[in-house]
Amino acid sequence: MEKILEQTLLYDFYGELLTEHQKAVYSDVVFNDYSLSEVAEEYDISRQGVHDLIKRCNAILTGYEDKLHLVEKFMDAKKMVGEINDLTKKFFDTGDSECVRRIDEISNDMLKIF
Amino acid sequence: MEKILEQTLLYDFYGELLTEHQKAVYSDVVFNDYSLSEVAEEYDISRQGVHDLIKRCNAILTGYEDKLHLVEKFMDAKKMVGEINDLTKKFFDTGDSECVRRIDEISNDMLKIF
Repeated sequence: MEKILEQTLLYDFYGELLTEHQKAVYSDVVFNDYSLSEVAEEYDISRQGVHDLIKRCNAILTGYEDKLHLVEKFMDAKKMVGEINDLTKKFFDTGDSECVRRIDEISNDMLKIF
Repeated sequence: MEKILEQTLLYDFYGELLTEHQKAVYSDVVFNDYSLSEVAEEYDISRQGVHDLIKRCNAILTGYEDKLHLVEKFMDAKKMVGEINDLTKKFFDTGDSECVRRIDEISNDMLKIF
């Protein structure tokens, strides 16, 4: 997975477990694309301090995913919902009820995972 | 929600964030239905100690959900997958393509939430 996408997902899921300060600095660097120097000045810390904080936050967020695997679980579910959505389009294109049979199968599998 | 169901869900989602000791004691009391006295003896702690540990674990698990709302998110998704599954059955009973239109709508909504 691309690093920025992975960071976004991890932050979406576990970001609330960071401190307010960590969230603010992390967001500015990773999502708002400020430079380390700009952020260092803004929060009155050293560039190295900003760098260490980002590294630490990435480790914290990855640590939660390593234990809980909830991003992974959600991504699997999202993929299956995408398949269901494609199958409804295919049904309206072709009228093939096999599409609905497959939707039934996927939704059954999902209910087992959940 | 019933307390035991709620505890099970919270433990399923966030249990790995407890220590090994907390997990062992918590599981024995909450899921394996041992008495406080039995567990106290097994782990060589007081009954009050077991009681406090359970209370503390419930607070930790609830604290994670209050911040992350991932159980809530999953429950919402599960409900929607259940509806999709019901609609496939209804389609095979009635042949009504309105069922597939509704599946399309629900899966679109889910892709927006995810």
